[in-house]
Amino acid sequence: MKKLNIMIFASLLSMQAQAADWKALPTVAPAPADNPTTADKIELGKMLFMDPRFSSTGTISCNSCHNVMEGGDDSRSVSMGVHGKTGGRNAPTVWNSTFHSVQFWDGRAASLEDQAKGPVSNPVEMGMRDVETAMQRVRAIPGYKPVFEKTFGKDGMTIDNAAKAVAAFERTLITPNSPYDKYVNGNKKAMSKQQLSGMNKFAAIGCTSCHSGAAFNGPELKIGEGFYAKFPTFDNKYVSKYKLNEDKGREVATGNSADRNMFRVPTLRNITDTAPYFHNGSVNDLGEAVRVMAKSQLNQTLPEKDVNDIVAFLGALTGEYPEIMMPRLPSTSGKSIVED
Amino acid sequence: MKKLNIMIFASLLSMQAQAADWKALPTVAPAPADNPTTADKIELGKMLFMDPRFSSTGTISCNSCHNVMEGGDDSRSVSMGVHGKTGGRNAPTVWNSTFHSVQFWDGRAASLEDQAKGPVSNPVEMGMRDVETAMQRVRAIPGYKPVFEKTFGKDGMTIDNAAKAVAAFERTLITPNSPYDKYVNGNKKAMSKQQLSGMNKFAAIGCTSCHSGAAFNGPELKIGEGFYAKFPTFDNKYVSKYKLNEDKGREVATGNSADRNMFRVPTLRNITDTAPYFHNGSVNDLGEAVRVMAKSQLNQTLPEKDVNDIVAFLGALTGEYPEIMMPRLPSTSGKSIVED
Repeated sequence: MKKLNIMIFASLLSMQAQAADWKALPTVAPAPADNPTTADKIELGKMLFMDPRFSSTGTISCNSCHNVMEGGDDSRSVSMGVHGKTGGRNAPTVWNSTFHSVQFWDGRAASLEDQAKGPVSNPVEMGMRDVETAMQRVRAIPGYKPVFEKTFGKDGMTIDNAAKAVAAFERTLITPNSPYDKYVNGNKKAMSKQQLSGMNKFAAIGCTSCHSGAAFNGPELKIGEGFYAKFPTFDNKYVSKYKLNEDKGREVATGNSADRNMFRVPTLRNITDTAPYFHNGSVNDLGEAVRVMAKSQLNQTLPEKDVNDIVAFLGALTGEYPEIMMPRLPSTSGKSIVED
Repeated sequence: MKKLNIMIFASLLSMQAQAADWKALPTVAPAPADNPTTADKIELGKMLFMDPRFSSTGTISCNSCHNVMEGGDDSRSVSMGVHGKTGGRNAPTVWNSTFHSVQFWDGRAASLEDQAKGPVSNPVEMGMRDVETAMQRVRAIPGYKPVFEKTFGKDGMTIDNAAKAVAAFERTLITPNSPYDKYVNGNKKAMSKQQLSGMNKFAAIGCTSCHSGAAFNGPELKIGEGFYAKFPTFDNKYVSKYKLNEDKGREVATGNSADRNMFRVPTLRNITDTAPYFHNGSVNDLGEAVRVMAKSQLNQTLPEKDVNDIVAFLGALTGEYPEIMMPRLPSTSGKSIVED
């Protein structure tokens, strides 16, 4: 009996230690020294983020695939860009992307500033020849000039400043005060019994070995240092069913075979709002995503009760989305600049 | 000399009579008896208007082609719908569409309510099989149910109510207080000398024979009674250059050859923000659009000074766009409903 008590005590200790690792989401995102967040920059960044005229067809803005009116993605398995073209990967949510230390599924951009320049010239996304061609479009809209000048000074209308503005806007896209955050901050009634059960199981089976930290995307690293995991790690029936290992992951970016099937560990924040799931968007349902992860990463077949509890816990990670006023996009004064 | 004085007097009388016809835009749009505008309805309508998940691909919302962050259109000659498909006509602005007594270029929808149901099942626009399939998508998003019930009561989740909500939102999309409106309302400094000169020429050469009234789209008619004009009326070099008579216009809708090349007279409000121009979006520049209209409708070749003055006047028709808060679109709780 004494031995059992000691075991229970040790187990409680371990649960407390686990509990101490749970972190609430910060309510403000830090900005890099060379791109301090300002109100003007946020407003310009929001305009650029929402403006579809910087895609070849005039139909695709950043917001098309990262819809901030919803989960910061596009509800599609893989995104649809200009002329209905589709790519190979699922659009990651822009919400809380500031808490990632690298960007894209393969971490090929170090910062939000670097990332912002990517989709513009991707032929299956915004389809511009290059970022300079996109900047010609920006310059062809007279109303952008004073906004750039106000924000960045007289010669401020550059692609680097455009990217800085978009990144500054994105740093405002954070969703604190989820039931989980409230719980961690001391409101013990903020989560349901099932959510708490799921939270404990999430830690107990080892999900937290990758999905740790305030954003559930791994340890805090310096910008540019990525936290990657091999997915899938274990072979199983889901791998072929959902084509999980067809994408070489970070190897595509680095050319290094050691990076095969390595992906940046994604945030789990607001995950109920970002179906479908995984780098290829092949799994449509969050419960199935939990089953796949348990089997492919931890080699475990979860009882359905555990799946349901963990799904309930993941629902507690959905935070408060800030209200956003629509920007007014400047017109081109009687001329269209879209040609494609 | 007496005769000349009489002529001048008659001419002044005529100018005063013309001046008396200038009308400012109402600041509130009337609503039909069976769809009174309410705050709940506006909010629901805004959500539906902005939600791309009611298109087959999940990429096209009403706002995709009628972008209220800009001129209420899409800057394209013809719109691009699902899978990059394009149609044959230019997207009319949604701003002030409430002041049209029929909808679409060919007037085939009587009301905003009727219009709202059209693009959903158009294969080159939102691409749903039919409106009921679109409503299945709405029903598959749990968060819409309470909003419909709050707005329309317990069994309120119908396509007709969805259309009513969208129409109620659209009735808020009006842009009063343009320099022209301020001028007409008594502020004689609100328009520049060139704009006033353009205003007089606009009336003198006969533009107002069609583009009359507060929205510059013809006489006030009952909903469902359209004001149409044949375009082009006179043959000229522009007709072939811009393929102006290839679209049979209202004949396509009615099957009546008397309706060949008949189009609803569009509003000129905010026209500097809605390039490119005409039913086929073939003219990219507002000055050229003025030249084409003068020649094709009034059989006149305008001096360039008159073109520039009229363009300046048209710039005075750009009003104040109301600020719009982005709606929060309800999520699908861990399941994607987009399949195409």
